[in-house]
Amino acid sequence: MDMVTIIAVSSIVVAGFTIALGSIGPALGEARAVAQAISAIAQQPDEANTITRTLFVGLAMIESTAIYCFVVSMILIFANPFWNYAINHAGK
Amino acid sequence: MDMVTIIAVSSIVVAGFTIALGSIGPALGEARAVAQAISAIAQQPDEANTITRTLFVGLAMIESTAIYCFVVSMILIFANPFWNYAINHAGK
Amino acid sequence: MDMVTIIAVSSIVVAGFTIALGSIGPALGEARAVAQAISAIAQQPDEANTITRTLFVGLAMIESTAIYCFVVSMILIFANPFWNYAINHAGK
Amino acid sequence: MDMVTIIAVSSIVVAGFTIALGSIGPALGEARAVAQAISAIAQQPDEANTITRTLFVGLAMIESTAIYCFVVSMILIFANPFWNYAINHAGK
Amino acid sequence: MDMVTIIAVSSIVVAGFTIALGSIGPALGEARAVAQAISAIAQQPDEANTITRTLFVGLAMIESTAIYCFVVSMILIFANPFWNYAINHAGK
Amino acid sequence: MDMVTIIAVSSIVVAGFTIALGSIGPALGEARAVAQAISAIAQQPDEANTITRTLFVGLAMIESTAIYCFVVSMILIFANPFWNYAINHAGK
Amino acid sequence: MDMVTIIAVSSIVVAGFTIALGSIGPALGEARAVAQAISAIAQQPDEANTITRTLFVGLAMIESTAIYCFVVSMILIFANPFWNYAINHAGK
Amino acid sequence: MDMVTIIAVSSIVVAGFTIALGSIGPALGEARAVAQAISAIAQQPDEANTITRTLFVGLAMIESTAIYCFVVSMILIFANPFWNYAINHAGK
Amino acid sequence: MDMVTIIAVSSIVVAGFTIALGSIGPALGEARAVAQAISAIAQQPDEANTITRTLFVGLAMIESTAIYCFVVSMILIFANPFWNYAINHAGK
Amino acid sequence: MDMVTIIAVSSIVVAGFTIALGSIGPALGEARAVAQAISAIAQQPDEANTITRTLFVGLAMIESTAIYCFVVSMILIFANPFWNYAINHAGK
Amino acid sequence: MDMVTIIAVSSIVVAGFTIALGSIGPALGEARAVAQAISAIAQQPDEANTITRTLFVGLAMIESTAIYCFVVSMILIFANPFWNYAINHAGK
Amino acid sequence: MDMVTIIAVSSIVVAGFTIALGSIGPALGEARAVAQAISAIAQQPDEANTITRTLFVGLAMIESTAIYCFVVSMILIFANPFWNYAINHAGK
Amino acid sequence: MDMVTIIAVSSIVVAGFTIALGSIGPALGEARAVAQAISAIAQQPDEANTITRTLFVGLAMIESTAIYCFVVSMILIFANPFWNYAINHAGK
Amino acid sequence: MDMVTIIAVSSIVVAGFTIALGSIGPALGEARAVAQAISAIAQQPDEANTITRTLFVGLAMIESTAIYCFVVSMILIFANPFWNYAINHAGK
Repeated sequence: MDMVTIIAVSSIVVAGFTIALGSIGPALGEARAVAQAISAIAQQPDEANTITRTLFVGLAMIESTAIYCFVVSMILIFANPFWNYAINHAGK
Repeated sequence: MDMVTIIAVSSIVVAGFTIALGSIGPALGEARAVAQAISAIAQQPDEANTITRTLFVGLAMIESTAIYCFVVSMILIFANPFWNYAINHAGK
Repeated sequence: MDMVTIIAVSSIVVAGFTIALGSIGPALGEARAVAQAISAIAQQPDEANTITRTLFVGLAMIESTAIYCFVVSMILIFANPFWNYAINHAGK
Repeated sequence: MDMVTIIAVSSIVVAGFTIALGSIGPALGEARAVAQAISAIAQQPDEANTITRTLFVGLAMIESTAIYCFVVSMILIFANPFWNYAINHAGK
Repeated sequence: MDMVTIIAVSSIVVAGFTIALGSIGPALGEARAVAQAISAIAQQPDEANTITRTLFVGLAMIESTAIYCFVVSMILIFANPFWNYAINHAGK
Repeated sequence: MDMVTIIAVSSIVVAGFTIALGSIGPALGEARAVAQAISAIAQQPDEANTITRTLFVGLAMIESTAIYCFVVSMILIFANPFWNYAINHAGK
Repeated sequence: MDMVTIIAVSSIVVAGFTIALGSIGPALGEARAVAQAISAIAQQPDEANTITRTLFVGLAMIESTAIYCFVVSMILIFANPFWNYAINHAGK
Repeated sequence: MDMVTIIAVSSIVVAGFTIALGSIGPALGEARAVAQAISAIAQQPDEANTITRTLFVGLAMIESTAIYCFVVSMILIFANPFWNYAINHAGK
Repeated sequence: MDMVTIIAVSSIVVAGFTIALGSIGPALGEARAVAQAISAIAQQPDEANTITRTLFVGLAMIESTAIYCFVVSMILIFANPFWNYAINHAGK
Repeated sequence: MDMVTIIAVSSIVVAGFTIALGSIGPALGEARAVAQAISAIAQQPDEANTITRTLFVGLAMIESTAIYCFVVSMILIFANPFWNYAINHAGK
Repeated sequence: MDMVTIIAVSSIVVAGFTIALGSIGPALGEARAVAQAISAIAQQPDEANTITRTLFVGLAMIESTAIYCFVVSMILIFANPFWNYAINHAGK
Repeated sequence: MDMVTIIAVSSIVVAGFTIALGSIGPALGEARAVAQAISAIAQQPDEANTITRTLFVGLAMIESTAIYCFVVSMILIFANPFWNYAINHAGK
Repeated sequence: MDMVTIIAVSSIVVAGFTIALGSIGPALGEARAVAQAISAIAQQPDEANTITRTLFVGLAMIESTAIYCFVVSMILIFANPFWNYAINHAGK
Repeated sequence: MDMVTIIAVSSIVVAGFTIALGSIGPALGEARAVAQAISAIAQQPDEANTITRTLFVGLAMIESTAIYCFVVSMILIFANPFWNYAINHAGK
């Protein structure tokens, strides 16, 4: 296998598994926060505003780790510096 | 194996496992949120509207991680830049 | 092994494991939601309509991740672009 | 190994493990739903009809993921497009 | 190894592990349903009929996934289309 | 290794692991059912007959999955169609 | 390695691991049943006879899966049909 | 490696791991039974005789699975039929 | 494979898995902190300010470990000293 | 590698891992029994004698599985029949 | 592969996985401490100062283990003595 | 690799992993016993002597399994009969 | 690969994974101790001094195991006797 | 690879993983004991002396298993009899 092929294959593999593994934690984490928020609203309907606001801040923090994974995955597919270097040098 | 074959195989493998692994977290997470929402509605029927609204926001956030995986999976099958490069250079 | 064989084998393997792995999360998740809904109906029979409606929305969301896996699995068996490319170029 | 053998072997292996892995989630999930339904009936015998109906809808959803796996498994054994292609081209 | 041997070996291996893996989920699942049913009967002896009927429906659904695995296992040993193809072409 | 040896080895390996893996689920499952039945009898001695009857039906269902594994294991050792085919063709 | 050696090695390996793996489930399962029975006797000394009888039936069922593994292990060491075939044909 | 060496090595490896793996289940199981018996005696000192008797029957059943593993381990070291066959044929 | 290729591949692989693995812990951890904070606000609405402040300090600490992983991942893609060394010496 | 070396290596490896793996179960098991006994003594100081006696019987049973592993480990190091056979035949 | 390449690759791989694995423990640990602190503040608002102070000491201790991992990761990328030795001797 | 090297390497590896694996069980086990003893003393300060005595007997039993591992580890490093045999025959 | 390279690589790998794995236990452990201390302070503010003192002793003990790992990691990078030996003999 | 290199590498690897794995159990164990002691002091401040004394004895026992691992790790790095033998015979 030449350099272009190897880098393409490893980029494909890593892009997929990064977002696949990286979605497990945030999905479970957000579910826990949402479930607790729903439970809290049911107990204290008067505090729904404070609870919802805290929930949204928390979801944003948790989602950020999923975003990191998605960003890395997209970089590897569409803006991969190693791939650019490889196809520029493949013709040589 | 030549370059076209390797990239095709790795795209197939990664596309499948990305969505397979990526569906475990969101499925369990959504189930938890839904179960808690149902439980909360049973306890506080008067707050069903607030609970349902919070649930839908949460489900959207959780589903987003599954969507990320599905998007990466579809990109790898139908809009794979590495595959396009490979079949363009395969005849050379 | 030539290109056609490799792509066929990897498509078979991935199609199977995608739906196999992808069914674990939704099956457990739906079970949790259903169990909680049944428990909620037993506690609050008067809210059975609201509970059932929320349950169906939730099941649809959870089932969607299983559908994603099934769709990818079917694409790999019956509408695989890599396979089509391979058998078109196999005779050359 | 020639192409026919490889495809046959991979079809056998994947067909078996798809249904084997795919039966774990639904079996545990259905058990949870059934157990909860039985528990609910014991608590609220008067709601047995509503509970049973919700249970059957839920079991149908959960069983559907097992059916997906069984369908893929049967397709791989008896209606495998890759196998058909292989035995048609084996004599050439 | 020739084609007949490989297919025979893979059929043996897959037939065994399919039923071995496939029996774990149903066995644990049925145990859960039965244990809950026994517990429910002890709490509500008057509803033993409804509980038992729901239990049997549930056991049938859960057992069905074990049956799927057993069917695939038996097909692979006694009605394996790949094996039939192989021994028909072994003499050639 | 010739065909007879390979099939013998794989039959031995699979026969052992099938019953070894296949005994874990039923053993734990039956234990759960029995433990619950004993607990139920201690709570409701008057319903011992109904409980015992339900228990035996459940144990029969759970044991059936162990029996499936044992049957496959015995078939592979004493009535293996692949082995019969192999030793019939070994002398040729 | 010739056929006799391979079959001997695989028989040794499988015989050991079959009983080793196969003893985990029954040991934990019996412990659960015994622990529950002891707990039940402490709660309801008057029902010790019924509890003990149910316990023994359950232990017999659970032990049966360990016996299956032991039987297969002994068959592989002392009554192995593949080994008999091998040593009969080793001198040829 | 000749036959004698291979069989000796595999016997050593399997003898050790059989008893090592086989001691985990019974050790944890007996601990559970003993812990429950101690707890039961503390609750019902008057039933210490019945509890102790049930405990000993249970410990004997659980220990039996450890004994199976120890027996197989000893057979493989000191009464191994494959080893006897091998050293009888090693000089030939 | 030459040095440039190997370093490129290992950088791609490690960059992806570092952020993928590194997002699991913080996502679950932040979810736990957020869920507890929501629960605490529901119990003590008057202390919402103190709780929110403590939550934000904690989220910052937890997010810091995700940031470490993201920093290492970005360094490996865009500011990798080994890659710089390699492409500087690749032409020699 | 000649026979003496292989048997020495495998004996060393197995002797170590047998006692290492074999100490996990008994250590956790004895801890459970001791912890329960201490808890029971604190609840029922008057039954300390009966509890201690039952504890010692139980510890002896649990320790026996650790002893089995230690015995096998010592046999493999100091009284290994395969090693004796090997060094007796090494000079030949 | 020459020495420079190997050391570069292993440094990249280890630097990534060290911080990735090393962030799981501290992230979960800090989350636990923060969650407990929030819960404690909600129960005892008057002790918020003492609780916060103890929390910060604990977070510092827990963060220290993440810092260790980050330090080792940075040393391997930017101040690696083995890499310095290698590039100094690469020209020879 | 010659015999001396192999035995040295395997002794090093096994000595380390034996004590590493063998320390997990006793450490967790002793912690459980100590934690329960502390809890019991807090509940029943008057029985501190009996509790402490039972604790020490239990710790001695649990520590014994760690000692077994340490003994085997030390034997492999400093009194290894296989190593002695190897260096005595290395010069020959 | 020559000796210097191998030792450098293995030192890098082990240094990283030692501190990575070694930080999981202490991080989770310290979190547990801190969480319990915070909870205890909230219950018994008057005993904050005794609790804090016991906590610090405990944290020191737990941190010591992380320190062991960090020390070994630093020794392998900066004071590795095997590396010193290797580079002293590399020129020969 | 010659003998000196192999022994150096294996000593490095084992020294690191021994202390890394060996620190998990004691760290978690000590945390449990400390947490329980803190909880006990909060419940029974009057017994702080007895609790602290029992805690220190327990910590010493638990720490001893970590010490065993650290001792083996240090022996392998600085007082390794196999390494001494190897470098004494390397020049020959």
